[in-house]
Amino acid sequence: MGLYEQIKESFDKQGLMHSLNAHLASVQDGEVKVACEFSAGVTQQDGYFHGGAITSILDSACGYAAWTKIPEGKEVLTVEFKVNFIKAAKANKIVAVGKVIHAGKTLMFCEGEVFDETETTVLAKMSTTMIVIAKSV
Amino acid sequence: MGLYEQIKESFDKQGLMHSLNAHLASVQDGEVKVACEFSAGVTQQDGYFHGGAITSILDSACGYAAWTKIPEGKEVLTVEFKVNFIKAAKANKIVAVGKVIHAGKTLMFCEGEVFDETETTVLAKMSTTMIVIAKSV
Amino acid sequence: MGLYEQIKESFDKQGLMHSLNAHLASVQDGEVKVACEFSAGVTQQDGYFHGGAITSILDSACGYAAWTKIPEGKEVLTVEFKVNFIKAAKANKIVAVGKVIHAGKTLMFCEGEVFDETETTVLAKMSTTMIVIAKSV
Amino acid sequence: MGLYEQIKESFDKQGLMHSLNAHLASVQDGEVKVACEFSAGVTQQDGYFHGGAITSILDSACGYAAWTKIPEGKEVLTVEFKVNFIKAAKANKIVAVGKVIHAGKTLMFCEGEVFDETETTVLAKMSTTMIVIAKSV
Repeated sequence: MGLYEQIKESFDKQGLMHSLNAHLASVQDGEVKVACEFSAGVTQQDGYFHGGAITSILDSACGYAAWTKIPEGKEVLTVEFKVNFIKAAKANKIVAVGKVIHAGKTLMFCEGEVFDETETTVLAKMSTTMIVIAKSV
Repeated sequence: MGLYEQIKESFDKQGLMHSLNAHLASVQDGEVKVACEFSAGVTQQDGYFHGGAITSILDSACGYAAWTKIPEGKEVLTVEFKVNFIKAAKANKIVAVGKVIHAGKTLMFCEGEVFDETETTVLAKMSTTMIVIAKSV
Repeated sequence: MGLYEQIKESFDKQGLMHSLNAHLASVQDGEVKVACEFSAGVTQQDGYFHGGAITSILDSACGYAAWTKIPEGKEVLTVEFKVNFIKAAKANKIVAVGKVIHAGKTLMFCEGEVFDETETTVLAKMSTTMIVIAKSV
Repeated sequence: MGLYEQIKESFDKQGLMHSLNAHLASVQDGEVKVACEFSAGVTQQDGYFHGGAITSILDSACGYAAWTKIPEGKEVLTVEFKVNFIKAAKANKIVAVGKVIHAGKTLMFCEGEVFDETETTVLAKMSTTMIVIAKSV
């Protein structure tokens, strides 16, 4: 099974991604994109994307970016992340791009950005630590 | 309208809280609780609560805790948060408790904790900065 | 050698603590205090404690708090930290209190607070991840 | 007085920068570099640069980068920062590069990187929120 297929299989098990109507947009070595169309189910009180929805797809994008760097039989879990919200997320669609900045044997440091549908305006940025562990059966 | 009712009205406009099946559990001066029952719609790939779902209810709990400290006609937005994930969130229910640690005129510093259904085991912790702005009409 | 002596020996090797004129104030299981008197060598541009000085003693306090929880032959390194600055640090002395919140085998999650000389007013808070590694010879 | 001179004057008032033997290396619109030669006064227990020293010059670099974007009569203070430590800082010299990512009227979001003397290997990264306030007299 190719890398995209492995990640797609895992992504599809994330019930939260279904609730958000998010999808795996692309998988490259060290970089994964997750996109999410606007819907009533992702909003905060003013009708924009909720910070929690933004963070959720950032977390998945960074986690799967880390996944592209690990040996078979391993998986990654999020240790911590920080998100800075830069602009109100008034958009028809948001795209999270997660990238591996440093891949250690035990820990990985990744960064992510969320763009609006133009993929040029940055709405939020994540920095995160992932830990590599043996895969749950 | 009392403080609980005001916050409940705003909370109910957060479509994301509906998607997660989360509810406003309590409102006190400087402290708000948001709870979320386990469902297939909140999971990560191993079937536990997704970090994004945990973060979403933490963000709402901290945001509404900040709300209890602001004058009428204002609202709060999240500037940034950091979450540390302490234990895998295998639970039937999670409860986020958001608290105001310091309330300035422009910025508020809040902290949140997510517990499992026993409300004693801490699964994750948030530290966050909120900004007070004029309410969107 | 007792725990205090071990930590004191390591602390004294931290040249930065000497530059800041900081000292190890107390060592308990899971909690360490580091104090720093005000001097011209710790200031920012307005003459208060610099955020970097505040962070430095927080980092040492949290690191040595983690140290109290590890087996012999190991040491801890800082993976990441976040600091929120709550009040301007106009004080004659600051005291950092670092505490272990969760001690895993590989990672530890700690929190720290910096107080002014009254030890009641919180000036800044840290949340941090430490990693347990084999001791450098 | 030009921008470099204004920032140099403020930088020179930071007693901590003197204690670390750090200097202002360059000032451009939205980007400031601060460098620090290795000395016994900046170390942690294994003789490398202490995370607190790394953070101190990152904070100053980001703060002065923000300063290049504010009107006269204002100054910036650090609200919060997060630092991820990527590699042990065994180096003869470290260079912090602070950059403004988004400049709002009240808040600025900046990022910083610390390099070793080659200015190619990243040792640590900062993400930080600054607030614009009226200058202290």
